[in-house]
Amino acid sequence: MDKIRVGVLAATGMVGQRYVTMLAGHPSFELVAVAGMESAGKLYGEAVRSKQQFPLPKEVSKMVVSDTRPGAFRADFVFSALPTDAASVVEPRFARSGYKVITDASPHRMDHDVPLLVPEVNPEHIVLLERQQRGRKWKGFIAATPNCTAAGLALVLKPIHDEFALRRVVVNTMQAVSGAGYPGVPSLDILDNAIPFIKDEEQKVETEPLKILGKLDGARVKPSDIRLSATCHRIGTTDGHMESIYMETKSKIDIERLGRVLRSFRGEPQRLRLHTAPKQPILVDERNDRPQVKLDRNAGTVPGMAVVAGRLRPGLDDFSARLTFVAHNTIRGAAGSTILAAELLRSKGMIG
Amino acid sequence: MDKIRVGVLAATGMVGQRYVTMLAGHPSFELVAVAGMESAGKLYGEAVRSKQQFPLPKEVSKMVVSDTRPGAFRADFVFSALPTDAASVVEPRFARSGYKVITDASPHRMDHDVPLLVPEVNPEHIVLLERQQRGRKWKGFIAATPNCTAAGLALVLKPIHDEFALRRVVVNTMQAVSGAGYPGVPSLDILDNAIPFIKDEEQKVETEPLKILGKLDGARVKPSDIRLSATCHRIGTTDGHMESIYMETKSKIDIERLGRVLRSFRGEPQRLRLHTAPKQPILVDERNDRPQVKLDRNAGTVPGMAVVAGRLRPGLDDFSARLTFVAHNTIRGAAGSTILAAELLRSKGMIG
Amino acid sequence: MDKIRVGVLAATGMVGQRYVTMLAGHPSFELVAVAGMESAGKLYGEAVRSKQQFPLPKEVSKMVVSDTRPGAFRADFVFSALPTDAASVVEPRFARSGYKVITDASPHRMDHDVPLLVPEVNPEHIVLLERQQRGRKWKGFIAATPNCTAAGLALVLKPIHDEFALRRVVVNTMQAVSGAGYPGVPSLDILDNAIPFIKDEEQKVETEPLKILGKLDGARVKPSDIRLSATCHRIGTTDGHMESIYMETKSKIDIERLGRVLRSFRGEPQRLRLHTAPKQPILVDERNDRPQVKLDRNAGTVPGMAVVAGRLRPGLDDFSARLTFVAHNTIRGAAGSTILAAELLRSKGMIG
Amino acid sequence: MDKIRVGVLAATGMVGQRYVTMLAGHPSFELVAVAGMESAGKLYGEAVRSKQQFPLPKEVSKMVVSDTRPGAFRADFVFSALPTDAASVVEPRFARSGYKVITDASPHRMDHDVPLLVPEVNPEHIVLLERQQRGRKWKGFIAATPNCTAAGLALVLKPIHDEFALRRVVVNTMQAVSGAGYPGVPSLDILDNAIPFIKDEEQKVETEPLKILGKLDGARVKPSDIRLSATCHRIGTTDGHMESIYMETKSKIDIERLGRVLRSFRGEPQRLRLHTAPKQPILVDERNDRPQVKLDRNAGTVPGMAVVAGRLRPGLDDFSARLTFVAHNTIRGAAGSTILAAELLRSKGMIG
Repeated sequence: MDKIRVGVLAATGMVGQRYVTMLAGHPSFELVAVAGMESAGKLYGEAVRSKQQFPLPKEVSKMVVSDTRPGAFRADFVFSALPTDAASVVEPRFARSGYKVITDASPHRMDHDVPLLVPEVNPEHIVLLERQQRGRKWKGFIAATPNCTAAGLALVLKPIHDEFALRRVVVNTMQAVSGAGYPGVPSLDILDNAIPFIKDEEQKVETEPLKILGKLDGARVKPSDIRLSATCHRIGTTDGHMESIYMETKSKIDIERLGRVLRSFRGEPQRLRLHTAPKQPILVDERNDRPQVKLDRNAGTVPGMAVVAGRLRPGLDDFSARLTFVAHNTIRGAAGSTILAAELLRSKGMIG
Repeated sequence: MDKIRVGVLAATGMVGQRYVTMLAGHPSFELVAVAGMESAGKLYGEAVRSKQQFPLPKEVSKMVVSDTRPGAFRADFVFSALPTDAASVVEPRFARSGYKVITDASPHRMDHDVPLLVPEVNPEHIVLLERQQRGRKWKGFIAATPNCTAAGLALVLKPIHDEFALRRVVVNTMQAVSGAGYPGVPSLDILDNAIPFIKDEEQKVETEPLKILGKLDGARVKPSDIRLSATCHRIGTTDGHMESIYMETKSKIDIERLGRVLRSFRGEPQRLRLHTAPKQPILVDERNDRPQVKLDRNAGTVPGMAVVAGRLRPGLDDFSARLTFVAHNTIRGAAGSTILAAELLRSKGMIG
Repeated sequence: MDKIRVGVLAATGMVGQRYVTMLAGHPSFELVAVAGMESAGKLYGEAVRSKQQFPLPKEVSKMVVSDTRPGAFRADFVFSALPTDAASVVEPRFARSGYKVITDASPHRMDHDVPLLVPEVNPEHIVLLERQQRGRKWKGFIAATPNCTAAGLALVLKPIHDEFALRRVVVNTMQAVSGAGYPGVPSLDILDNAIPFIKDEEQKVETEPLKILGKLDGARVKPSDIRLSATCHRIGTTDGHMESIYMETKSKIDIERLGRVLRSFRGEPQRLRLHTAPKQPILVDERNDRPQVKLDRNAGTVPGMAVVAGRLRPGLDDFSARLTFVAHNTIRGAAGSTILAAELLRSKGMIG
Repeated sequence: MDKIRVGVLAATGMVGQRYVTMLAGHPSFELVAVAGMESAGKLYGEAVRSKQQFPLPKEVSKMVVSDTRPGAFRADFVFSALPTDAASVVEPRFARSGYKVITDASPHRMDHDVPLLVPEVNPEHIVLLERQQRGRKWKGFIAATPNCTAAGLALVLKPIHDEFALRRVVVNTMQAVSGAGYPGVPSLDILDNAIPFIKDEEQKVETEPLKILGKLDGARVKPSDIRLSATCHRIGTTDGHMESIYMETKSKIDIERLGRVLRSFRGEPQRLRLHTAPKQPILVDERNDRPQVKLDRNAGTVPGMAVVAGRLRPGLDDFSARLTFVAHNTIRGAAGSTILAAELLRSKGMIG
């Protein structure tokens, strides 16, 4: 079967580099275009030179960076890692021109006709795309994946909510600097420091999971009524977000069942055996000093795609519990998650 | 007036070095003995050589390290920074021999006749000392100060509890490596990492504040009935613990009043103008990216003795709120707090 | 005596904040203007808000940031912490307008009529200023201080060169991120990393000390003929540059004499007892694991103004030796050094 | 062909974990024993639990840790990652009992009848083993690999020395904390710090490369007469040593030829296509900000086995040059290098 031709917008940035790396050797997607706002015309290898974060596949280094406009290249669909401001303008322009856009950027995530996908959690939300195309009279579309912190959170909450009916969740995060992109966080701000503030982050973490966990209700998604409180902290780690949760449930919750429910969770990507789907999306580590950012961020049969949960403990009563998890913010929280969403869309005949 | 002669047990450790530094030039205490378990007989300067953490006063470098046993030196009272196991045996030995011991170690903190002091919060608990002396037939006594994480927490909760009546508190901490002493946390464990576990810490943070905020009830302290959940994380900072709180109150709480109550809080040490008492024990910073560990750990008119709170926000309903604070773990959380407790005891005629 | 009125250009940056802090309470200089390129009109406290690096004096927070142009404020002289491009244009504009400018920026350092001052090393070079004023027909002038890495190096080499006649010096540096200003080094570039390259740095470190150690020869400075090789590395420290030196001398060198010569070195600022002059500009620590960045960067009777040398060892023959030193890059290497130069100029009647 | 059975001594330590990981799936070696000084009898997974540094192969987690004494297990040869004191006693005991020991520990490295192997550099030195066995009347033997810093250095110097005849080398290192093992460097010592001292390290770095680059002279190795100066610094990186070299040569040296010589270097392991041999042992990166520890420590077709050199620059005259390289200290500098040595010995019929 022919491979599907894909482009990456903002391919030279932090998340763009992850896309390029994860797409190397992909069985069904072929990277045909790397687009950049400021480096069009340069070789990709040159363009990322001063902001390279990890080793890159050789073949992509020789590609010429494309312009970021419809028509600059041909592709069956595009991944967008555009920064917020650019995304709000550029993505609709591509979609209107017939490109299918799968984006990790924030501007369209909460639009009523844009599915906000965590492939294991809400694959059924992709029906929104047809309504979007009809309503907007677009040949292309925009599908979105959530904020890096919300992605892991929604994944972990899904099986818990299904089993115990969450009432309230208090989450505290310790986030890696790669979440801010490049150049991102100045080293003077984070060496020997922690900062209890990330611009717009808490608002995203408190709303996106509710849409993801929401139910399809005719033409739209009815958000979940879980009450969610987030406090987000930046700390001096390179990759991998840690999140500690205090949760209250409507059903009685016990730790043994909580562990079982997390471990046994499988979603549509696992059933479809999608290429980027980890065999087990949520691993549970019972050692009392796990998960740890450095040791667990690359967990899973697809490295960085599994979330590792630990410190499962009862809360202050029989209807509450606590846990901590680690999720790789630029893989499970960005490029990996979005590639998995594209694989899901492909398997459903929406792209290619 | 003659100065009171004081000794420091475990003077060469991380917290011991803080005592020695803070006692230099103290107006009413004179450091006459630095005791060490393994370095007795050496010069203090030599003994701390390989584990020095910050510049030390010159005069103390020339002192000879004493044995850690009653009779090895004369002093009106001793500060103990002993590690847990040693403290449980050695401190009672000193107290029985007539020494007045003020300790930052954990073994005796929860004893019913030992006051667990945060001088601004529960100065009235010192009456336990007379009962302790009577009951144990000791000429000396043991007074304790809390765990480094609990110290700042109890201080911040005090004015909130008085005003709004706390029902439930969920605290998440990001703790500095100096909290583990020296050598403490291996660098391989913490560079580019976060660890959601500190041995025995959560248990202490969930119980000590309740005793501190408890009411005297005849011969004992009746612990507060606030329900407290703590999740403790170690991160790669040198000094200064950050704690983020989600709190529920019995009275309606609003952010403007919360800020006012924190800012205007003063305790007995402020009224008595004790040497180590900061003018304002709780500072409130309204900038949205504060407090920060590096910028705020040394806050206060006595550096490191004021706690800086920020990110005051409503919670999920009218009876809940959120905030984050930074407290210096080896000053407000250890040596400074304990020296302040000693100043309080002196002003009440209990020592000297 | 009336205080001399001083302004600071680029007062909101990393080095600008150091100036502002060090000038608080200065006995002869009064800070009357804080100028900023992008924040003119704001309160200083607001302008530094998002890039504050350490606690700042309260009184300066209320000052209104001035424009960066002659006439915007009156001052007896100005300190410039301008970035390179701006400095090359703006500093001459101020000097031409009659302002006396003392700059830490690089563009004019190597001009033949600009003294490049390390006050302990080449105070006699200030005679260049008169020639500069005559030659350029300026009422003001530009005096410069060296690159942060070169400043400490020239200071350490001075007494060695006087005693042993240096032939060749190979220096390897490990430099803190504050040397790159703010935002400066992205955290993604330096966490768990070392980078053997700092733009233009080696060229500066290989030439500036030769001018500083040069001899006045009529109307100009004849650079020293020491042959200097520098390799500069950026590492993940906040403040304090470490430099390791391999040196070859014309005279026989032995370690005991080397230590004596370094320790006993005093310069004009010490003789004049200038306010910012440390009593002993070069401290020697004989412990085998010193100097260390964290423990020694704030050394000296004026914190951060003394350089700490250690690891004095013979080289591969009788005419070579090795040592390592630590110097605070934004104090001894920038603001402190420049303030000391201003004090020297004042004592010589060149300003005020 | 049957696999050769191998054991690892000190298998639970930092370097031991590297052995275990690199031996998983090895085509000719089968890991049959993991020995530990303090954890004999435990499952390997349990024994490394609290000191795990990276993900480990599952199958080895179930192995039972063996005693560290001859006879405790059967193996065709053993890798030793023992700490110095233990190695000096235990390794001869194993060799005397007939085990062939390949060690990364220091005690026997400089023994006249022990080859100190960098497989690309001095494969001919293995003839010492027969003399060792004859002389000591041992059925087994001890072969050694060098100190982690010396290993990369000797490899880089080899082709340069062959081409230009080195006279003198001044090396400055910036070493990762994993070089000190676990627990190793306390985090309080290295966060925001650099330390210009590593116990016994400079002595090793100044002597081991001379033996490695030495010529066989009848029954022994005549050390090279290069004059070598080393200054070693510990910095806050996890893995990967950076070394900057200033070198003087007997032949005229130019940078273009230097680059060519490094790039084209191949050794016996490359000719023999040994499993752990990288295709090109020395990579040269011409970008001016490379090599970097984080980006280059895992370089090579066998990750971590290639050294990356960069910043090739002329020195102060035509007979000198400068460069910086990065080598993975626990792979190229320890486990990987030693496994490669074992593969060399096997190909020469010395083991198996």
